[in-house]
Formats: sequence, C-alpha cells, structure tokens
Amino acid sequence: MATTQSLLDAAVALAQTRRSADLGDLIEELRIPSISTLPERREDCLRNARWLRDRFEAIGMKVQIVDVVQGGLPVVVADWDGRPGKPHLTIYGHYDVQPTDPIDLWHSPPFEPVLHDGHLWARGAADNKGNHMATVKAVEHLFAAGGPPVNLRFIIEGEEEISGPSLPKYLRANGAHLKTDAVLIWDSGMDEQGHPTLATALRGLLYTEIHAQGPAVDLHSGTYGGVSPNPINTLARIIAELKDRKGHITIPGFYDAVQKPSAEELATWKKKDAGYAETMQRMTGAKALEGEEGFLALERAGSRPTLDVNGILGGFVGEGQKTVIPAHAFAKVSMRLVADQDPAEIFTAFQARVRELSTPGVEVEVKMLSSAPPVTCGVDHAAAQALRASYERAFAKETSLIRVGGSIPVAVDFQEAVGAPLVISGIAQADCAIHSPNEHLVVDNYHRGIEAVIRFICGLA
Amino acid sequence: MATTQSLLDAAVALAQTRRSADLGDLIEELRIPSISTLPERREDCLRNARWLRDRFEAIGMKVQIVDVVQGGLPVVVADWDGRPGKPHLTIYGHYDVQPTDPIDLWHSPPFEPVLHDGHLWARGAADNKGNHMATVKAVEHLFAAGGPPVNLRFIIEGEEEISGPSLPKYLRANGAHLKTDAVLIWDSGMDEQGHPTLATALRGLLYTEIHAQGPAVDLHSGTYGGVSPNPINTLARIIAELKDRKGHITIPGFYDAVQKPSAEELATWKKKDAGYAETMQRMTGAKALEGEEGFLALERAGSRPTLDVNGILGGFVGEGQKTVIPAHAFAKVSMRLVADQDPAEIFTAFQARVRELSTPGVEVEVKMLSSAPPVTCGVDHAAAQALRASYERAFAKETSLIRVGGSIPVAVDFQEAVGAPLVISGIAQADCAIHSPNEHLVVDNYHRGIEAVIRFICGLA
Repeated sequence: MATTQSLLDAAVALAQTRRSADLGDLIEELRIPSISTLPERREDCLRNARWLRDRFEAIGMKVQIVDVVQGGLPVVVADWDGRPGKPHLTIYGHYDVQPTDPIDLWHSPPFEPVLHDGHLWARGAADNKGNHMATVKAVEHLFAAGGPPVNLRFIIEGEEEISGPSLPKYLRANGAHLKTDAVLIWDSGMDEQGHPTLATALRGLLYTEIHAQGPAVDLHSGTYGGVSPNPINTLARIIAELKDRKGHITIPGFYDAVQKPSAEELATWKKKDAGYAETMQRMTGAKALEGEEGFLALERAGSRPTLDVNGILGGFVGEGQKTVIPAHAFAKVSMRLVADQDPAEIFTAFQARVRELSTPGVEVEVKMLSSAPPVTCGVDHAAAQALRASYERAFAKETSLIRVGGSIPVAVDFQEAVGAPLVISGIAQADCAIHSPNEHLVVDNYHRGIEAVIRFICGLA
Repeated sequence: MATTQSLLDAAVALAQTRRSADLGDLIEELRIPSISTLPERREDCLRNARWLRDRFEAIGMKVQIVDVVQGGLPVVVADWDGRPGKPHLTIYGHYDVQPTDPIDLWHSPPFEPVLHDGHLWARGAADNKGNHMATVKAVEHLFAAGGPPVNLRFIIEGEEEISGPSLPKYLRANGAHLKTDAVLIWDSGMDEQGHPTLATALRGLLYTEIHAQGPAVDLHSGTYGGVSPNPINTLARIIAELKDRKGHITIPGFYDAVQKPSAEELATWKKKDAGYAETMQRMTGAKALEGEEGFLALERAGSRPTLDVNGILGGFVGEGQKTVIPAHAFAKVSMRLVADQDPAEIFTAFQARVRELSTPGVEVEVKMLSSAPPVTCGVDHAAAQALRASYERAFAKETSLIRVGGSIPVAVDFQEAVGAPLVISGIAQADCAIHSPNEHLVVDNYHRGIEAVIRFICGLA
C-alpha cells in the first residue's frame, strides 16, 4: 500500500488534471430536477438516487438505495471498509433541491446549468449538489490513486428540503450499525469574504401555522364593517405584536435559555461585522437591514433567535377589488432557535402568546409543522483540526469559526443516534442564493473543495 | 284615462294574481351568471342586458343598450314619457352580480335558483336582481292596468359590483337630458327586524392596496433571518397599527370631519341596538362582535367610519413549509367613510400614515383603487313621503330611517349630475347574505315590494 502522502499527492494531481470531468459530472446531476416538495418531481428524485448509486458503484463502493418510509424518498448509502483498523468517516449530503418559484426571476432555466463569469448557475449548484459532488469526486480520485486511507460511508438523503422523516428514521433505527469516528456534514458554506468555515453552532427551527377564523362566511364590508371581526386585521395584530418595534420577540420566556456567545466569538464578530453587514445589505437588495436592536448583524444572523412570517393569505387577492370581510386567514410563522432553547417549550409559549394577542371575535388555531433543536459543535477534536489544516492548504486561507443561521435538522439525528463528532462545513458561498432564483456556485471553490476533501480524508488516516 | 286610484287598485290586483309569473321572471334572470368582475362572464353580462331590453320592450317602453366605455358593460336605459305635465321618476338598479367564491360553501348552485322555506336562494336574489325585478314587475302591472300615472325611466347598469366607469360617465355626460323629479335607488334593504327602510345616509368607500417590498428576491430565512427586513412582518405591523386595540383608527385627522348622528337617531338606535347586535352576531357566526369602543353597534355599522383588510398575500402559502423571507407582500385595505369625510383628503393622510408605520428596510407603495364619497339624503321631500306611505300599506309596518353601511357610488353621480332627490331603499333583508355564499331573498318581501312600488309610483302622481 502506498503511503498516505503519496496517495494524497496522486489524488490531488488527479483533481488537477480531471477538472473538466469533475465539473461535467456535477452539471449532469444538476440537470435532474429533484424537487422533493413537488409530487410531480418524485420520479426525478428517484432518478437522482439511482444516478448517485451508479456513481458509487463505479467508484468501487458497496451501495444501496434504502426505502425507509412508505411513499418517502430513499436514502442512498455507500460503504467501503477496505482499511480495517483505520478510522471511519461518514459524509452526509442531500440530492433533493428547493422549488424554483418565482421562476420568472431566473436569468437562465434552473435545470439547464450555465457557466458564466466563473460561476455555475443552476438550482442545487450550491445546495447541495455542488457540495456533495465535491466529496464524491474527492473520494473517486482517492480510489483512482490507490484507495482511500480510511474507511468511508456516504449517506445522501432526498428529503432535506422538506424535513422528511426518512433519514431521521434510518439513523435512529440503525444507529448501532453506523458507528463512525466523524461525520462530515457538507451542507454549509464559506463566509461572505470567501473564507472556509467550520460551524460551532446551527440554529434550530420551529415552523408553525396560525389559522384565524372570524365570521363563519365571507361578509360584505359595507353591511358588516364596524361590527364583524376581521381575521386578517387580527392576524396582522398578532404578528405585529409578536415583536416590538425594536425587533425583540415578546413571547414570555423566549430568551431565557439563550446562550451568550463567547468573548472570543464576540471579539471576532465585532471586527467582521461592518463588512458582513455591507455584504448582507448588498445581497438582500433591501434599502436597509433590520433586526434586533442592540446586537451585531453577525449575532442577529447566527447567535440570536428570530421570528419571520414565511407566508400569509386571506380574503380576496385577485385583480381589482372585492369589499369582503373574509371568514378565514392564515400565516406561516417560523422561528430560528439557538442553544439552549427547547422547541417544544417555545412552541407552548408561542401558542399561549398568539392566543393572548388575538381579539374577542377571532378564533385562532396554532399548528406546529416541524421543529429541529439547535446544535452546538466542538472544534477541538481530530476531525475538525484535520479539516482546518486541509482548508489552509487547498484555499490558502484561514478557517472562520461561524455560527450557521440555518438549521440542519439531521445534525441532531446524527448527534443523538450515531454520536460521533460533527464537522459542518461546505463550499457554498454566503452570496450563492440558495433557495432563491439564480442559485450559483463559484467554480474555483468547487475544485479547491475537492482538493480540500482529499486532504481532509488523508489527514484522518 | 282611469283615475290613479282605480289604476292603483287594478295594478295591485294584477300583482296578487300574477305572483307565479312575477317569481318566474325573477328566476329566469337569476339563471344568468352575470358576474361583472370575471372576463369569462362578459357574454353572460351582455346577455342579461339584452334580456332586460326585451322585457322593457314587451312592457311598452322605449329602450336602448348604451355602450359607454370601450370594453365596458352597457347601461340599459328604458323611457316612457306618456304623461306630459306629470312628475318624472327614475328607477336605478344593476344587472351584474358578485363572484360566487368560496363556491363549496353554497348549499345549491348559485345560478340554479331554489325555492325553500319561503326564500329564493341564488346569487343576485337580493343584490340586485330581486330588487330591480320588483320595480320592473310593478311597472309592468301598471302598464297592464292602463299605463303608469307618471313618466318613468329605468337605468339598469352592469358595473356596480366593480365600481366601473360606464354609468358615472353616462350620467355626467347626459345629466342635462336626464331631468327627473326623484331617483329611486332600490339597491338597499330591510332592517334586521324586517322593517322597510329609508336611508338617510350611505357610507363612502376608499379602496386601496399597500405593496411592501423588502429584499429584492426571496431569501432563505436561515441565512438571512435576523438581518433581512421581512415585508410580511412590516405589512402586518402597518395594518395592526392603523387601528389601536380599542378599534380607533390612528390616521391623524381621520375623524375630524365625522358628523355626529342626530339626537333622534341616537335615541332610536339605543332602543334597537341590543336586538341589532344579537342579529348581527348570529349572522356573522363569529364568537363575538368587534368594533370601535364607546359606540353602539348600529353607530359602528352606519355612522362611524371603518377600516378593514379585504385581502392579503405574501410569501409561500402552499401546503407544507418553505423557509423563505419573501421579497414582496401586499394587502387590500378599504375604509368606509361617513359625512363629511373627503376621500381624497383621507387617502393622503392614509398614505402618509402607512409610510410612517413602515420599517427602515421596507419600501411601501400605496395605491388608490377607487373611492366614493359618503352621501346624505333628506327624507322630507314628496318622494320619500310617498315611499313611506306605500310601505305602510304594502308591508303593514313602519319605515325605519337608517344609515346604510355600504356605499352606492352611483348615488353620488345621480346627486351631482342629475340633481334630483334620492330615495334609497329596497327589499333585501339584512340577513340575506349579499356578496356571500347562499344569498337569498324572502319571497313574501318580493311580492310586497312589487305592491309597494306600485303604490309609490301612484303616490307621485
């Protein structure tokens, strides 16, 4: 067997010479419109799973498509145990993508990838196909160079964008058989200054719907205006009063369990905050940023909990006018949670607060659609250190320790069912428009990412 | 020529014997789905206009279908000048109806009229086909009895439910040729205790849209939650703060021009208010009524201005969840105005207040979709007295002087362009569900209404 160093050198050399094929493979996967939330795209999702299975087989891994839940989307699991006695690494990714609406804002069709200005434009380019294909290609080059120096498992799911039950169920049912020394969750990204990152925390998520019922049927606002309750007015009042004008959430006890950032984190954030805020404002395209008064932008986006309305609908919304007091209105309201907030406790308090803010004539119902607790990750274990070292070589940049604003619900499942240290990172830049029109990936980061993963895997040996 | 009394007796006798035909004709008109707001129903609206033309011709009136505005819906104008030197009465109605959504709440198809429990169930049964057909049938019986004792003009428009421009333009262009001694606007109804009514005031209407733009595109709430403005949260805040928790509208100067009701009105309302509120609560089906603190329900619904959201839309409103901070949201917000509020002044103040209530990152745009000033009507002229007398005979009940919560924009046009006294009344009961599913008309009121109109017309001679 070759030394780890010669293996590493050979694999990195392959990554240099096979750039065009590496990019071509990603483009091929991006052509599959694997939108998990749309029933009519189910066959495309299954096709994507088979496409991945074929790749892992071609590499030389043992692979299975695991149907976990009736009617769900399967988990692709690929294994290689060719290094008995050596460490074991699990790599996580997801093959499903977000919907593409509003479609008319895309500059090119979302599933016809376009290379332009050093970026690759397509739905999934960053989230998560660009990320997981970089890990697949790194492993492919290691096999071509003589075989990875550690044991490997890929777990690529198809329900990340819909918080589906398949992977959590799979992990919790098979936790004992999934022993591993580290889990690389490559579903995150680089910071807005282009530094590689390592996550110290992920926010949790509590996703709810508030339904407000006023009159039993839609009423005429001339006859009933002044006496009938209006569920839209009441819903608006509830939403408005869930936060004060300073951006503080008014749910009693909401902030009680919130952990303060460390002095070191705060010091770093203070230095970076002005630049970060400037980038965020450019990227939002809004006339100003908003958020909780008294906190840095980096705190607000990473270490503070938030509350946002994701959708609202009620009454007549067609062209023109209808003088109606509607019977019903609803809103989708989600909260990003931070350690040590407990989603179940927060939901109870949220429910009570919504009821309290309602008006006498309006009946409110609060439903929880999903929840994921916040996650904290240590960065002093071997895998984290190996990843930081590999980033320094591949990107020639220091690694930023960041708090991730989004939640990766499966991180909790890995933590609880598998128990190994999590390493959460990736190559999607902060401005890559995930979940939005014109999602894109910096092509150079893709190639450097492949090299970084090669170095990381060799660093674990 | 027969005496007015013998004419009256003969016509009333015809109304008694021809009940079945009178109802059959209404049912025939109700089968025409003349929804003016739906382009696909345009041909049905035109068919309804022709159907009315044929009826007026059959009666013996000179009738024309007047196309006023390119692409608009025509006005049906029928004239009879067979009594030179006698007074002239104009009767107003509209042949267009409201849309039928939410269609699944109807107990029977809206354009297949059903007789059940003494009511006639169909879209338009009350608003306005039941009303205007009662006047058409009254005149038909007067012709059959020998000819009406006064000169007559019907003006039946097709754009009432969309506040269209055709009739206002027609009235203002032809005001000089439309001289008349009184205008009967039979588009109102009976009070909740079944008394005939005469309106002393109509509320005006100011219908607006607020558009709120936050980020330039939809954003991921994980990455941007805490820094990006959210136009739904801001729109909710604006709507909430346009009224305080006591129901008072917070637009500066909003109430300055509001006229107080007379001591006599207030005394009457105080007696009726508990019963009215009870009826209203039953009819709304809501768990409680709401409205401005410190005012009677009858004041709130008639003599006080209101503000209601008629529709709101933003973000993701499909099944399930999407963690999006949307770029845009909008709401339709309308205000019912009372004398002497000026719609243009109120709109300016509303616009300023909405801007003031917005947040730093959200751009708001406020559009006026339509406006109609409030109307006040005297009740001491001959036509009002004649109508009250005719109601006492036909319904054996006293007439209630009421303030109508809704607006009839064309009342302003009649007042300003034609200049004659307005008599605003009708036979739609307060609980007839106009603009809602299961609109209906009390059949007995229809027949008594025909008699009342016969008596009214004879009373003008």
